Amino acid sequence: MKPANLANQSSSWFGAEGPACDIVISSRVRLARNLAGFEFLPCLTPQRKQEILDKLNTVILSLDLGDKVFFIDVDHAAALERQLLAERHLISRQHAVGKGPRGVVIAAGEAFTAMINEEDHLRMQVYAAGMNLEQCWQRISRIDDEIEKRVEYAFDSQLGYLTACPTNLGTGIRVSVMLHLPALKLTGQIEKFVTAAKDADLAVRGLFGEGTDAIGDFYQLSNQVTLGVREEQVVEELSKNIVPRIVEYEKAARQALLEEKVHSLDDKIQRALGVLRSACLISSQESLYLLSSVRLGVNLGRVPNVSLATVNELFLVTQPAHLQIRAGKMLDADQRDALRAQVIRQKLANN
Amino acid sequence: MKPANLANQSSSWFGAEGPACDIVISSRVRLARNLAGFEFLPCLTPQRKQEILDKLNTVILSLDLGDKVFFIDVDHAAALERQLLAERHLISRQHAVGKGPRGVVIAAGEAFTAMINEEDHLRMQVYAAGMNLEQCWQRISRIDDEIEKRVEYAFDSQLGYLTACPTNLGTGIRVSVMLHLPALKLTGQIEKFVTAAKDADLAVRGLFGEGTDAIGDFYQLSNQVTLGVREEQVVEELSKNIVPRIVEYEKAARQALLEEKVHSLDDKIQRALGVLRSACLISSQESLYLLSSVRLGVNLGRVPNVSLATVNELFLVTQPAHLQIRAGKMLDADQRDALRAQVIRQKLANN
Repeated sequence: MKPANLANQSSSWFGAEGPACDIVISSRVRLARNLAGFEFLPCLTPQRKQEILDKLNTVILSLDLGDKVFFIDVDHAAALERQLLAERHLISRQHAVGKGPRGVVIAAGEAFTAMINEEDHLRMQVYAAGMNLEQCWQRISRIDDEIEKRVEYAFDSQLGYLTACPTNLGTGIRVSVMLHLPALKLTGQIEKFVTAAKDADLAVRGLFGEGTDAIGDFYQLSNQVTLGVREEQVVEELSKNIVPRIVEYEKAARQALLEEKVHSLDDKIQRALGVLRSACLISSQESLYLLSSVRLGVNLGRVPNVSLATVNELFLVTQPAHLQIRAGKMLDADQRDALRAQVIRQKLANN
Repeated sequence: MKPANLANQSSSWFGAEGPACDIVISSRVRLARNLAGFEFLPCLTPQRKQEILDKLNTVILSLDLGDKVFFIDVDHAAALERQLLAERHLISRQHAVGKGPRGVVIAAGEAFTAMINEEDHLRMQVYAAGMNLEQCWQRISRIDDEIEKRVEYAFDSQLGYLTACPTNLGTGIRVSVMLHLPALKLTGQIEKFVTAAKDADLAVRGLFGEGTDAIGDFYQLSNQVTLGVREEQVVEELSKNIVPRIVEYEKAARQALLEEKVHSLDDKIQRALGVLRSACLISSQESLYLLSSVRLGVNLGRVPNVSLATVNELFLVTQPAHLQIRAGKMLDADQRDALRAQVIRQKLANN
């Protein structure tokens, strides 16, 4: 499987289904693990990295992960392919630009990935569309158990799983949801949400996790505490308590917009659609903002002729590496802006 | 003829024909005259104003001005009707909001108007679409001669025609053209044009003459010197020398855009059209800006499905009084923005 083949398909985690998918784009659980008997990443020689890569690769590919399982040797992938994988959230940006023997196993239609030799020896994640944290946790926990039957993890009976960075120590778990909160933004309540989330020891990030800003009203919400907690607790707190409340707030804000400001709401949505359908040049950032307005419109039934699946797909395929792989060559910024506008016009015309 | 009946028709001076009409919207010659034996306006009693109004009204209506000649008693017209007349450039904004007996005679499909008791006893203008100053001058001069056979103008053998404001003394002539210069604006050369015009003793104003800013790339260019010149000189200087040079500059700038920046030009034009075709609320000012881009696009053949006539009509009918007369009632700003957007969507969809 070539990474390039992914460029034209939609992604299971950025899908148009799943519980509360009008607000919760996707759910994700990630585990950080390291092998006993090996140094942490910063201290490893390339030879030792290769040993880890071979070992984990073999073990993971031996598991029953379904039909389409493939390994990508990230170190030998082309720059554009590595960028594509990062744009699809299959590897981190750090893993894309890193050095030395490293790779990723991708399975279950991109819903499962395992990065080898990123910050830890093994970083596995399970995605699901919509609000589905429990399912993610059950899947990844089962896979983790299977791997643990085959390798020895670095584990301390007091501290739990040992990780390269102490922020992951203990459970090594990160539970997160990607939220689309345009109405909280429009009604000026988004700062309250961010403050409340931080007060609850949660991290609020942008579309691409750590170090990225919220663009287009997308917010990634995740736990920060990994030590001294049970995994089930973290999952339950987010999925039963925190996220449902945010979903209710966003719903209430959407209802308020419909009842009190429907003309300016429609104006914003229709203008966004008008620009997307007519622009000849459009930047990545502007299209994110405009697609965010259209997504809100589709979810509120204000845009009868556009499907949520199309809008979600456009978020993915308008990214720089996706466009260049579609074009089959490197493109400068102007060329990307022209191709992006063309792809958007075509997809929205076919709806 | 009720002024309201004008609201849905296009205007002869803002037409889609005439020499160089892609750049010169219209040509206009205006004469300021006063009657001998009457004080200037600021010193007139209402009774004396009424005498002037009756006298000039009778004289002008007795002339052969074609089929559709009508007089509007501006003092007794509704506020919305007076605003409509100003939006159509049939009377000045000052005349619309003035006090006391005053009126306007309109003829030749709005191409001839004569304001009575504005700043001077008589302010006549002849409009023509495109670059047609000589025709305007010949028409207004002939009408002026006919009136002068019937009344005695305030005239001094040394100074010429006497006017309420010394800036009009002598010939009482103002020769002007309304220019559409979007390419000079886009290529950053508009300031040079403004400076050069001022150096040549010309005034540069906005769509509504004195005291208004240039909006939507429309510039009114007019002579300032009225004393010690012959009318033919003023007309010839503008029509043979100055305006043709500006037209050449604008053409060159348009050509440069086509050759060097066609993608961003198309982007600007198509986005403008996209917003106009989809907005649910749009302000008067924003529509002027966007229509200006579309007008450029139509004139450069980049917008095959929209006619110049439609764009020109939209400039007129999207103005506040036009919209309210169409609606048959007063509208607040939000309601006007909604109706304006609706009218624009309809007109552009029918193209």
